[in-house]
Amino acid sequence: MNEAASTLEGWYALHDFRSINWTAWKSADDEERAMALDELREFTKEWSKIESANQGSTAVYTIVGQKADFIIMHLRETLEELNAVETAFNKTLFARFTTKSYSYVSVVELSNYLAGSGGGDPMENPQVIARLKPILPKTKYICFYPMNKKRDQNDNWYMLDMEDRRNMMRSHGLIGRSYAGKVKQIITGSVGFDDWEWGVTLFADDALQFKKLIYEMRFDEVSARYAEFGSFYVGTLLTTESFEEMLKV
Amino acid sequence: MNEAASTLEGWYALHDFRSINWTAWKSADDEERAMALDELREFTKEWSKIESANQGSTAVYTIVGQKADFIIMHLRETLEELNAVETAFNKTLFARFTTKSYSYVSVVELSNYLAGSGGGDPMENPQVIARLKPILPKTKYICFYPMNKKRDQNDNWYMLDMEDRRNMMRSHGLIGRSYAGKVKQIITGSVGFDDWEWGVTLFADDALQFKKLIYEMRFDEVSARYAEFGSFYVGTLLTTESFEEMLKV
Amino acid sequence: MNEAASTLEGWYALHDFRSINWTAWKSADDEERAMALDELREFTKEWSKIESANQGSTAVYTIVGQKADFIIMHLRETLEELNAVETAFNKTLFARFTTKSYSYVSVVELSNYLAGSGGGDPMENPQVIARLKPILPKTKYICFYPMNKKRDQNDNWYMLDMEDRRNMMRSHGLIGRSYAGKVKQIITGSVGFDDWEWGVTLFADDALQFKKLIYEMRFDEVSARYAEFGSFYVGTLLTTESFEEMLKV
Amino acid sequence: MNEAASTLEGWYALHDFRSINWTAWKSADDEERAMALDELREFTKEWSKIESANQGSTAVYTIVGQKADFIIMHLRETLEELNAVETAFNKTLFARFTTKSYSYVSVVELSNYLAGSGGGDPMENPQVIARLKPILPKTKYICFYPMNKKRDQNDNWYMLDMEDRRNMMRSHGLIGRSYAGKVKQIITGSVGFDDWEWGVTLFADDALQFKKLIYEMRFDEVSARYAEFGSFYVGTLLTTESFEEMLKV
Amino acid sequence: MNEAASTLEGWYALHDFRSINWTAWKSADDEERAMALDELREFTKEWSKIESANQGSTAVYTIVGQKADFIIMHLRETLEELNAVETAFNKTLFARFTTKSYSYVSVVELSNYLAGSGGGDPMENPQVIARLKPILPKTKYICFYPMNKKRDQNDNWYMLDMEDRRNMMRSHGLIGRSYAGKVKQIITGSVGFDDWEWGVTLFADDALQFKKLIYEMRFDEVSARYAEFGSFYVGTLLTTESFEEMLKV
Repeated sequence: MNEAASTLEGWYALHDFRSINWTAWKSADDEERAMALDELREFTKEWSKIESANQGSTAVYTIVGQKADFIIMHLRETLEELNAVETAFNKTLFARFTTKSYSYVSVVELSNYLAGSGGGDPMENPQVIARLKPILPKTKYICFYPMNKKRDQNDNWYMLDMEDRRNMMRSHGLIGRSYAGKVKQIITGSVGFDDWEWGVTLFADDALQFKKLIYEMRFDEVSARYAEFGSFYVGTLLTTESFEEMLKV
Repeated sequence: MNEAASTLEGWYALHDFRSINWTAWKSADDEERAMALDELREFTKEWSKIESANQGSTAVYTIVGQKADFIIMHLRETLEELNAVETAFNKTLFARFTTKSYSYVSVVELSNYLAGSGGGDPMENPQVIARLKPILPKTKYICFYPMNKKRDQNDNWYMLDMEDRRNMMRSHGLIGRSYAGKVKQIITGSVGFDDWEWGVTLFADDALQFKKLIYEMRFDEVSARYAEFGSFYVGTLLTTESFEEMLKV
Repeated sequence: MNEAASTLEGWYALHDFRSINWTAWKSADDEERAMALDELREFTKEWSKIESANQGSTAVYTIVGQKADFIIMHLRETLEELNAVETAFNKTLFARFTTKSYSYVSVVELSNYLAGSGGGDPMENPQVIARLKPILPKTKYICFYPMNKKRDQNDNWYMLDMEDRRNMMRSHGLIGRSYAGKVKQIITGSVGFDDWEWGVTLFADDALQFKKLIYEMRFDEVSARYAEFGSFYVGTLLTTESFEEMLKV
Repeated sequence: MNEAASTLEGWYALHDFRSINWTAWKSADDEERAMALDELREFTKEWSKIESANQGSTAVYTIVGQKADFIIMHLRETLEELNAVETAFNKTLFARFTTKSYSYVSVVELSNYLAGSGGGDPMENPQVIARLKPILPKTKYICFYPMNKKRDQNDNWYMLDMEDRRNMMRSHGLIGRSYAGKVKQIITGSVGFDDWEWGVTLFADDALQFKKLIYEMRFDEVSARYAEFGSFYVGTLLTTESFEEMLKV
Repeated sequence: MNEAASTLEGWYALHDFRSINWTAWKSADDEERAMALDELREFTKEWSKIESANQGSTAVYTIVGQKADFIIMHLRETLEELNAVETAFNKTLFARFTTKSYSYVSVVELSNYLAGSGGGDPMENPQVIARLKPILPKTKYICFYPMNKKRDQNDNWYMLDMEDRRNMMRSHGLIGRSYAGKVKQIITGSVGFDDWEWGVTLFADDALQFKKLIYEMRFDEVSARYAEFGSFYVGTLLTTESFEEMLKV
């Protein structure tokens, strides 16, 4: 039997992609729209409070193109909390003017491939905790995609031994590190939770860095031979103000 | 000709995933919602009676993310009973406020790979019966996914001889057993009934155990080389009370 | 050039899967529902007459799960007749309360792999005719799935020579024959008519026999290496009475 | 670099598959239906005129099964004309009672694999022109499917040299020719125009000949190893009269 | 680790494919349609101004077949601007009569495979800038498709070394260059932005040249072994006048 990499898990993540039904939104009367925006503002404040209390984090971005109009990305302590925040949003007046586009359920994860945790309980290590329960950056751009490691004939990640996987992940990690300061990356594991094995969420102030990072990695053996990618989503930061601006009709 | 593993079958299973049409639900008047909830309560009681009479079992969970809002998982003696319970639900007032998201038809199954039944008719063995006609656990979390064994070039499960398959299943079973007390697993066979060969339903009080179990298994040859997976669904327990709480608007 | 198996063809087949729009059906007034049921009853009688006159055959079953609510399977002499019966149904009042779920167009087929017809024109042979223009059994359960023979690298059915294909089909036929009396199988060819090469429709009074037959066959080389399967549908017999019972609201 | 087969192109083709919204059609009042049929009749006459003037050709057939209710296949000199005829139809009253099911954009094509044109400009050759700008046959049945040549590991058509491709196409052509008088075949190229590389449209007075031709070809190496097929559509001829008959409610 | 080709990026691109809801458009009253057309005219002028100011470029074409009715292709300096122009269009009265068909997010790209930039900062080179920030041609026809380089067993582009990739791209470029004056090609990179790695947009005054170019390239090793293609879209130029003509009812 082959050795699995051990993993540490932190906050659960829900990526909630929605589209706006513009016809319905424009047909609503001013009062209804005002009520919907009030409620949305209340929710945004609520999410901020949770973030301030370090009980979770939420980020809101547009999505460019027709796949969705915006994403609300939530991190919370438990699946129950994720489910509650999703259901509460579904019940809002504003949600009536949106349609569901895509969602992803996962949990923030650190794998031990790159670990050198030194010793001691990693869950007592503040740096580890900060990575497992991160406050989501509010950079100008977001990029999200889900991925698998392939199990295809000779290109079968899960049949490789630990040593080979570790070496490849190390080389992979070096590329990631060379983008330090330019791209912040949050890896979430979704084995057992959603249709791919991982979700990757990238944050940057220059969207081209997403392209450069992922393109460079694609020539690295771990991506070139072993990665399988789902849909890619890219978007721009939505503050409370710019969200309301976007919704002005 | 290659020897198939013999199988024992118990109750038929219907995994019925539904989404809530929140706009319609909120637009209904109080009386209509009250009637719908009354009817839902009646059905829940009915399902409990069947469970008490050991004529089947039903479990209700939320589903996190946009794939569905909840799942009703039914086990019944016959396909006719499954069909009847599904049709009865479709006719309820509450069903009018839901849309169909996904379903899965299968039958609880034990295969003889791991068997050492000792002798005698296994269908007279109370332990076997208990596994074939199980009362569904009411743990905090549920996980469901369908799967196939691959028939792809050199990775063809069905071309392996019985001995090789048995050895791999044994190693696989050891991982499962190491999660005893943490994850309860119900395997249902769906060859001839639905689009994948098996359905796997996991129950646990710690959702991370789903991830850890499935991830560990993925490095085992039987998964690494021979498993093909469908969509994964994860959710949280819905009692009569929490279901009504969820539906409060 | 490689020799194709010669085939005999009989009646054309339309598998017509439909779902019921329960909200619309329940919202209809009693009179409308009564008219719809009257019309449905008329159609059922019409189909019976055709069957009695040996000009075709029709069977109606529920489908368990969300893929569809029922299937009407028609056999007729010509594509024009299939098209006419489909269009006539589409124009009924009852059809307004249904949605299309899936359909399959094919023709009852016997291939010569297993033939030993002895000599003479097989189309003069009453046993052959009975298999090509069969009255559909009214067993308790139905199972339908479409399939291809693979053309994938080394697993390419169509590159095998006739002798190899014949030997594999013989072994395959032996499994089928061992289920005689338990499962009745109707093979329809759909090359040029629909998206898969064959449709398989199974009839049995014990639904588990579908699973056992198909699972056992899957270890046979012709399935293990060369078969590609579409969606599987399973259902229970609908008589005029049980159909009306199902539609009672 | 590998030599491509040179091709000659004629009329552009639009295969326009539509379904009828029977509920809307039946709900329309008599006057509206009469107007819609008048308009449809006008269009049919218009298409006939274009055909008489040898400026294009149009054929209308039912489609059996749920994929569509009918197909209008247009051949025209330019993409602008195809677009115009499609848009004009979309604006008709009748189109309001239909939904779009599938379409295919391509251009009638002759490849030089089988050529032995003797010399001279083929576009001056009346026989070549007749094949590139054909009047669509009005046989009893139509069959349509799109296809690719594979580029899959060792089965890569585009890596074969010209000589091998020519030999295989010659053998393939022999099968086609053996169906002369039974099946008329129009090949359209769609590289750069639609999702597959070719569309194949077959016309016959006996629908079984579609099955026999395609099945026989499937054992030929060019199909067995190198062909990839899309969806298959089969239907029956619609004259102005039978189309109106079909629409009678 | 394998060397990636370095790339230069220019304007961001949004390909926005839409369909017209003809029933709604025809049901609108004259005044509403006039207002919608006024607004559309305003937008078109706005896009022209941006183009004149060299701050972006926009082209509008029909799409032939049912995939869409038209495409608006925008090039802009930033993702924010793309998002703004998309959202502004979504809020128009005209957009209410359209539905979303497909979209693609990417960025104009030059890769260094074919570079011989001589030296100096390429972003100071006016010819490079003109290719990175191009005014979209207003040829008679457009063709769009997304594509990947394969990572499939032995056909893995990303495992080849730089030298091999460069040689293949050079041969590929020669074919492209032989169509100079006939087909203008804009390559956009979409790694990290959308579901494929590149988008290819072709412009020509003879639509057959799309077919001839792509077909010829398909025999080139870089396409034959390493290219994976998405859907193909083809259409005809829409000027302000022809767009209004198309919308006349």
